Formats: sequence, C-alpha cells, structure tokens
Amino acid sequence: MKVFLIGLGKMGGNMARRWLLAGHDVIGYDRDTTVAEKLANEGRLIPVTSIADGVSKLSKPRVVWLMVPAGKVTEDTIFQVSQSLSKDDVIVDGGNSNFNDSMRIARELTEKGIHFLDAGVSGGVWGLKEGYSIMVGGEEAAFKTIIPLIKSLAPSETTGWGLVGPSGAGHFTKMVHNGIEYGMMEAFAEGYDLMQSRKDFDLDLHQISEIWRHSSVIRSWLLDLISLALENDQELSHIQPWISDSGEGRWTVNEAIKQDVPAPAIAAALFRRFDSREENSYAYRLISAMRNQFGGHTMKTEK
Amino acid sequence: MKVFLIGLGKMGGNMARRWLLAGHDVIGYDRDTTVAEKLANEGRLIPVTSIADGVSKLSKPRVVWLMVPAGKVTEDTIFQVSQSLSKDDVIVDGGNSNFNDSMRIARELTEKGIHFLDAGVSGGVWGLKEGYSIMVGGEEAAFKTIIPLIKSLAPSETTGWGLVGPSGAGHFTKMVHNGIEYGMMEAFAEGYDLMQSRKDFDLDLHQISEIWRHSSVIRSWLLDLISLALENDQELSHIQPWISDSGEGRWTVNEAIKQDVPAPAIAAALFRRFDSREENSYAYRLISAMRNQFGGHTMKTEK
Amino acid sequence: MKVFLIGLGKMGGNMARRWLLAGHDVIGYDRDTTVAEKLANEGRLIPVTSIADGVSKLSKPRVVWLMVPAGKVTEDTIFQVSQSLSKDDVIVDGGNSNFNDSMRIARELTEKGIHFLDAGVSGGVWGLKEGYSIMVGGEEAAFKTIIPLIKSLAPSETTGWGLVGPSGAGHFTKMVHNGIEYGMMEAFAEGYDLMQSRKDFDLDLHQISEIWRHSSVIRSWLLDLISLALENDQELSHIQPWISDSGEGRWTVNEAIKQDVPAPAIAAALFRRFDSREENSYAYRLISAMRNQFGGHTMKTEK
Amino acid sequence: MKVFLIGLGKMGGNMARRWLLAGHDVIGYDRDTTVAEKLANEGRLIPVTSIADGVSKLSKPRVVWLMVPAGKVTEDTIFQVSQSLSKDDVIVDGGNSNFNDSMRIARELTEKGIHFLDAGVSGGVWGLKEGYSIMVGGEEAAFKTIIPLIKSLAPSETTGWGLVGPSGAGHFTKMVHNGIEYGMMEAFAEGYDLMQSRKDFDLDLHQISEIWRHSSVIRSWLLDLISLALENDQELSHIQPWISDSGEGRWTVNEAIKQDVPAPAIAAALFRRFDSREENSYAYRLISAMRNQFGGHTMKTEK
Repeated sequence: MKVFLIGLGKMGGNMARRWLLAGHDVIGYDRDTTVAEKLANEGRLIPVTSIADGVSKLSKPRVVWLMVPAGKVTEDTIFQVSQSLSKDDVIVDGGNSNFNDSMRIARELTEKGIHFLDAGVSGGVWGLKEGYSIMVGGEEAAFKTIIPLIKSLAPSETTGWGLVGPSGAGHFTKMVHNGIEYGMMEAFAEGYDLMQSRKDFDLDLHQISEIWRHSSVIRSWLLDLISLALENDQELSHIQPWISDSGEGRWTVNEAIKQDVPAPAIAAALFRRFDSREENSYAYRLISAMRNQFGGHTMKTEK
Repeated sequence: MKVFLIGLGKMGGNMARRWLLAGHDVIGYDRDTTVAEKLANEGRLIPVTSIADGVSKLSKPRVVWLMVPAGKVTEDTIFQVSQSLSKDDVIVDGGNSNFNDSMRIARELTEKGIHFLDAGVSGGVWGLKEGYSIMVGGEEAAFKTIIPLIKSLAPSETTGWGLVGPSGAGHFTKMVHNGIEYGMMEAFAEGYDLMQSRKDFDLDLHQISEIWRHSSVIRSWLLDLISLALENDQELSHIQPWISDSGEGRWTVNEAIKQDVPAPAIAAALFRRFDSREENSYAYRLISAMRNQFGGHTMKTEK
Repeated sequence: MKVFLIGLGKMGGNMARRWLLAGHDVIGYDRDTTVAEKLANEGRLIPVTSIADGVSKLSKPRVVWLMVPAGKVTEDTIFQVSQSLSKDDVIVDGGNSNFNDSMRIARELTEKGIHFLDAGVSGGVWGLKEGYSIMVGGEEAAFKTIIPLIKSLAPSETTGWGLVGPSGAGHFTKMVHNGIEYGMMEAFAEGYDLMQSRKDFDLDLHQISEIWRHSSVIRSWLLDLISLALENDQELSHIQPWISDSGEGRWTVNEAIKQDVPAPAIAAALFRRFDSREENSYAYRLISAMRNQFGGHTMKTEK
Repeated sequence: MKVFLIGLGKMGGNMARRWLLAGHDVIGYDRDTTVAEKLANEGRLIPVTSIADGVSKLSKPRVVWLMVPAGKVTEDTIFQVSQSLSKDDVIVDGGNSNFNDSMRIARELTEKGIHFLDAGVSGGVWGLKEGYSIMVGGEEAAFKTIIPLIKSLAPSETTGWGLVGPSGAGHFTKMVHNGIEYGMMEAFAEGYDLMQSRKDFDLDLHQISEIWRHSSVIRSWLLDLISLALENDQELSHIQPWISDSGEGRWTVNEAIKQDVPAPAIAAALFRRFDSREENSYAYRLISAMRNQFGGHTMKTEK
C-alpha cells in the first residue's frame, strides 16, 4: 500500500527500507531533503520536499506516518499534516511521544474527522534486520487500514504487533516498555560493575556474557548486546561514564507517582543517569560539609 | 562418564535425567531414598542409600556432584563425602552456595588433595528441556575432568558453559547472575503494575507480553515466562502478594557494599521482597504515628 | 492589624488563635459556619457566613488569608475572593498549594492589580504553642503589608519567617521542606524498624529516643515527636501500617525529575507510602509467578 | 573518679577535657605521645607513654576507656589492656565498633572475669561544649561503676545517657543512630540540591535554613549545621563532591538485610556516597554502551 513517511532518521530510514522491501510505495520527507534523496537512490522511495507535496501523492484514505522527535516537532508536524488531510485520512505517530499528548491530539483530530493512531515502535537500529515490536493505540477501523504496513515492520506477519487499546494506549505501553528497559539496564550495569570490581577473580566478562546468553534465567536481547559491546573491549575504555535519557524513563516514574504505583528500581535507574551527568553535585558537597561540621571529618577541597 | 549425584530434587533430578539421556552413568543419592528409587524406575539411574555406598561405585578419579541446599547441608555433605574420597578425586558443588564459603572449602579440600569446583547452575525447571547455563570456578585440570558432564548439561556442546575463574568465581558469578535477575524481575513487576493500574486503557497484558516478546528491546526469557504466567489468568488472582528469597539477592547487595559498588536497583528489588512479607510493618506504623503527632493527621487504627 | 481568614480547620483555627492573642482583628470564615461561631465564642474572632461579608468588613488595603485545601478548593476560593477585592488588596495562600499553580495565579491576579503571596506554613498542630515557620513568595511591597501578621505567627519577631523569593518561591520552598520531611521520617522509620527487629536486645525504644534527643547528631523535632508517640505504647499496637500522603512528596519527586536532580531517598519514602496502602500488590504477585515459572518455587496461593 | 583513657584524638581529647572539667582524674595515652603531653599542658591530665603504665596508675576496680579506631586497632588494644587487668576491672569501648565484634569481645573478656561495656558516643566535635549522647551495652553492675564518668560526658546528669541493653546493644544502637543520620543527611542534600537547581527563584539557602530552624517540622541539629556551613559560602565552592563513609552505614544496611528489614532510604544514602567516589563508573559506561548498541545513541567518548 501507499504511505507517506515523515522523518527519515535512524528509525524512519530503516522503516522505509523495510516497507520498500515488502513492496509498499513509500513517499518520504525529511527536513534535511538530502536524506530523502539518498534513500531514493537506494531504491524505490519517492522523495518529496514538502509535506503538502507528500500528501498530494497519496490517494484516499491517505496514511501519513510520522517518525519525528517527540514534543513540539511532532505537534507542529501533525498540525501541518492535518491541514492537508480530510475526513477519514489517518495519521500515525510512531515516535516516542508522551501518551497524554497523544490522547489530546487524538481528540483534536477526531473533531476534524481525521483518524489518529499512536504507535509505540521498539527495535532500534536492529529493526531493519529483525523487525520492530509495535503497540498501537486508537480505533480499530483506522488500525485495520494500516495493518499491511504494520505487518511489514513486524518481525513476522503474526508476531510482534497489535492494537493494544484506545488512543494513548500505544504510547503508554511503549513508555512502560522503556521504563522496564531502564530498570533492566541498571540491573545489568550493577551486576557487571560488581564483577569488574573483584579484580582477584580476573573474570572475562565477555565469556560470562556468552555463557549467560544460553539457558540462563537472565538471557535477553540486552544481554546479547552487552556481549557484543564487550567483545573487543571489556574495559569500555573509550566510553565516558555519562548517560543520556530521552524522556520515557521520567514519564514512567511520573506516571507511577500519579497512579500510586511503587517504582523504586526504575526510579533508581533514572536517578543514576542524572548522577552520571552531574559534574559537581551540590548534594554531595553539602553532605561533605555536614560531616565536616559535626565530626570534623576532612573534606576534599582541592579540585 | 560416571558421576555420583547427591541431591535429586527439582534441580538435581532433572540434571540426572539429562545426564542419563546423554549416556552417562549416574549414581544417585537423596536423603529421601524413595526419590532415587523413583528416578531409577524412569531409566538407568543407579540408586544408593548412603554416600559411602555411592562413592564406592565410582572409579578413580571419582567425581561427586552435589545439588543440595546451600549452607549447613552442603557443608556437612561435603565433609562427609570428603571422608570417603582420596587424592585427585573431584567434588562439584552445583548448588547456590555463598562464594566465600566455596573459597574456604576449596582451600580445606586442597589440603587433602581433593579438587573442588564451584559450579553456578542456572536454568531452573526448564533446564531439562533447554539445558543449563553453567559457570565454574576452580582449577583447570579438575575442570577438564568434568567437561563431559558439563557439556551434557549445557544447551549445546559449545554454548552456555565455561570455567570462569579460580575457586569461588563460579558461585560468585552465579550470585551476580541472580542479583541481576532480582533487578530485572522488579523492573518487569513495576512496569506491569503500572499497566494494570490504568484501568481506563483496559490493556490485555498477555497480548502486550506477546508483542514485546518479538523484536522489542526488553525481549527476554523472563518476559517469555511472564507471558506464560498471564496466559490463563491475567489477574493472577490465585496468587498471594508474598515473595520469598533464597539468599543470593542478599549476598549480592552485601558484596556490593563490601566492594563500594552502588546497587540501588538490586537493593530495591530485595527490599520489596522483605516488604511483601511484612504483615504489620513497624516502619509504616511509626511514620503514621509521626504524622499524627505533628499534623494531627488521622491514623488508621482499626485492624 | 485586620485580616480576613478563610478556612478555620486544624491549621487555620490555631493561626486565628495566635493572631487574636497578638491583638489582631481576625474575621473568620469556614464552610462549616459552626466552626467560626465556636472560635468566636473562645474570644474576639468576628465570624462571617460568606466571603463577600468577610471582605466587606476589611478596610483598604485589604488582606485575605486562605487556609483551605490545596487544589480546586483553593483556586475556587481565590477566584471568589478576587471578585470582591480591588487594586492593591492582598491575597495570601497559606495552604500547601502546588507552586506551579501559585505562579499562574499570581500572574492572573497581578493583571487585576491584586497582590498574591504564596506562604508555606510549617508547624502543624504545635504551631499554636511553638509558632509557625513561614516562607513567603511574591513582591516585597505586598509582603511588607502582612509582616505584622507574619511576626505573630512566627516563633518570634525575628525568627522563623521571611520573603524567600518571587511568586511561587514560598510554596516551592515549603514543598522541598516537606520532601525532606518525607526522607527524614523514612530514615527514622527504617532505623526504628531495625531496632525492634532485634528482639534479643530487648531495647526500650522510648528510652533510646530520649537518649538521642540530647546531644546526638540526629536530635530533631521529629525525634521529639517519636519519643512522645512511643511513651505509652512502644508497640504502636493500635496503629495500622497504612500511611497517607498529601501530595508534597509527589511534587518534590516530580520536580526533581524535571530538574535532573537525583532524589532516591525522598522517592524511596514516597514509594513506601504507596506500598503501605497496597493490599494486593500486582507487582508482588507477578514476581511470585515468575519465580514459580522458572524455578518451580512454591507460591503462596491461599488468601 | 579515676579513668584511664586510651586514644586522645578528636573525640577522645574532648572527652578528656570534659572529664577534667568535671573533676575526674584522667590518665591519658595516645600512640602519638605528644598528644597526651599537649593535653597535660592544658590542665590536670596525667600523660602516660605505655598502656601498662596507665593501668598501673589506677586502683581497683580499674576503668579503662578506649577511643581508638574501630576494628583491628580496637581489638589489639583491648587484648593488650586485658593483659594488665584482672577480675572485676572494666573496659569501655567508646568507639564506633561493630556490635557483633563487641558481643564476641564481651564473651571473651567475661571468661577472664573482666567487664566489658560497649558505649556508643554521639556528638562529634561539638560534644565538648554540648555534651555527648551515650548508649551503653553490657551488665548493669559494670555500668553503675562508670556512671560518674557517663554523667560528666552527657549534656546533663539526667539526660542523654543510659544502659540500653546487654553487650552489643550500645554499639548496635549507635550503628542504627548513624544509619538514620545517613538517611537524614541524604534527605537534606536532595532537598537543597533541588532548591539550588531552580536558579529562577534565586533562593538564599542560608536564609531558608534559618527560617526552617525555627518551628518547622524538619528543625534539627543537622539543619543547624547546614545553616552554619552555608553562612559564608552558599555555593560550597571550595568543597569537592566526594563523600567518605566510616562503616556504620554499611553495617546498618547489612544488618537490615540480615533481619529482613527494608531500608531503601538508608541504602540510597550509602550508595550515593559510593557514587560520589566513582571517577569512571563501569556501570555508567556499560549503560551508555547498551544504548549505543540498540539505539545507535551517541556515546560521550572523549575524556
């Protein structure tokens, strides 16, 4: 089927490739117009240089799929797209948008008769090869329209995809997925940190990862990736101890607080990312100052 | 090859079956002698009713493998076995023993010329079918002796097993494995708790688990098991909110503290298990009492 | 000076008493009109039965002080009050409002020429006797108007009060105060829980509290209150292990997340309150189910 | 009364001064003999250059009080002292020893007829002026012997001291005290970190500390000290974000784990101290590597 894909970055670009391989007609737009050109050179993608142009190449009911940064860019793009669409057309937001935003946008577009689907898409840079796991929120009728596209993204026609609930449910589910991911990554990181601290055992952390990958209780894709990361440099010597975060972990903890759900492990994972980026923690300095005040404990004062 | 297996419970019993299938000669002992009889009836296992009898059926170098509860039972059994063994024989402790104990025991047995291997074995009740992940600590020479046994337990001859370091390293690695497992389970539990709390989305948690199992970043064996657990009863209505712990989580946090390694997610997982078993938390009551003292806040006082 | 106080509950009632003792003229309104009557009977408070009536009894510049529940009630009351006020009048919100709301309300009232002050008031039911700690946000000119009232609430004319910043800063500071309070209460609760768990020491927790109250590093008002709470019943036998929360702890963690500030201890305190109110935690049941799936571990299934 | 004090450091030196002021006869020994000389020059302290010499200056029943570093130094010193003592003499360990060690030592000394008291002493460098909070474990008869010394250390004859239980109970109680202290310090640090992060409010953290010190719920000695620390340099600009730990926090968490008591806030405080000392966290680097593996997220790789 025909789809207009907006956003051809790391995620969008590979999704376009997967659709093209499956025989879909993909019209592609990216703010950086050279990106669409490059993809067009790879194969059959039809590059456009404006959103209106992309929409004009579709036939009713039109499907526009967004893979752009969450937040303002997504909102602005949806608004712009909706100007060119009409009743019964479908917009799919496949980015990591906040589900509360998606619920509001769905209401707004519904008033215009436009269908909105919020699709959580997991799989990262491996999605091209291994397929994507896709959780969609919205109305069933609209969902049915895009099933051919979904099936081509998924690992197989019958696995890794589904309509999980009404508007918002797709991005909510993806948010929770990422929250769990934070907790799992932190758990692995703590365990590996502990193993590398026991210098006397002189452990080969790549070997252990490989052993665990087969039949252990903690076997998982993240463990597969750890093994890959450690293959050539167990010391991770070229990497700085600095972890970014893209927002889904924060939302998960915020939502947990809203719903009275304890989330100490996910919160711990989030806070450690903050800690990793602190270069001169006021908290640490204040505790050091308190210890000095009551106990006369020496503070480190040279920097 | 020939092996004398002591302890034929959930883990030991299935390991015996796997060895027998692979053609090894397994002599089996369990404190409950009917267990060895039952296994003998299934196939070729040779049941014995005493440890001395089991050892007498081996030929040099003798290999005795223990799958008994960690702690006193393991120590007593090792002592008893070592009385019947002589120079160059091998004792393998495949249980979840504390690695510090294993290091001490290895030293003691080495003085008697007996080899000791500490083997972390992961895989649970699924090990019979899917094989076990095995991390061994000890001397290479002794390890080589038992490689045929290890290969038959592992998922394949080339995967899921290895000598990871000197004495203690096997149980240390298994301890860390289980610590990571605690953190992962807690992360999943928090995420699922959050999903079930959003009643308005009316999510099908089994469906979502199935979607995630394919190509998502959090795909893992634990997720496969969650999906199985939710298949027929998403409400988990027959299960009590009470979680046991077998010790490895505690040891992991204790060791992290000893090594100055932050382990907040694993510690959170451990503390929640404690919380799950508290019926009348003094901490909660004291906080409630404080709130009443300073703010006149109503306490729940009827039970 | 003259003040119209709206909300005569646990906090407001005692503040009225303190103002009356200091010689201020207090006009009092409460939705439950019998409350104002009762206070009037105690002394010189002038009860009114409507907000408009209360305002009419003031002279310019009028000062209206709110001590009503945060959220909708506060917003509605401020709106209603503002209808009766005019340029240069002052509204003080002394409740536990969210500082973001206070910042918005200040902007809205400023457009009407009405001054708005957000006052964090700490001290609880002991404030009548010991005075209140007061942090105010807003413009200095408006603040100066109410200094006589503030001084009478404070423990002394020179201590325990101040203008801490622009609009929002008062409630922000009070929010952080309460967040710290959560963490301190949790720390005490954990320590006392640990002491009562060592039955072999047969500790007298009231005696220990009294020892600590004098010259120890952890001496504090919360410790004084613990000592009071334990005086007659160390077992806290009549109290249920159930802790309420009024919102400030949640806001603190949410704000910490927004500002990239790690707050693991305050978050832990918050999550334990959630845990205290869970009667049938899905998280705990799911972990129990996972353990059963992989290890065949027995679950508690009878309720 | 007469007492032989071993260890004249920050704690011991001030305790000697307090005893001398109260009229006791203090014989003093420190490994650095100039320290005892210096104290002798201040007043009536009798300096000795060996433990045997100090003991010889006492009369029966002799009281020897230790204020030396916990662990090996304390054990060695107790052993040495006990060689010079005889039946009914009393050794007091006023250091921060592990209560398990104190329980063992008490048993060993009891066999020799020597009394052992484990005294938790809190108050830090302020103890000279404000007195010390003292929790003692051991037999009542021995405790009675040293009450005159205890009363002189305490803030007053009737406050801040007591026999809290059998051997070990004094150091156990002090350990819990310090564990609570960790949690309180972390709670304050998180709150102040959050306040300093809101640059737009331009808060005066010293002013706020002073407001809170009077009548707020979180008023406490630690808050008094924070106020002192911030008085001249709110930025704490000369202090490094590096926090030491002396062992009691670790023991508290270890003991909590042993007793199945959840201690997430105290554990969080402990782990953040570890984090503060990590210069190149392997955990952080591994998480960064995982993110790069699955999502192609950029890692910081320059150092």
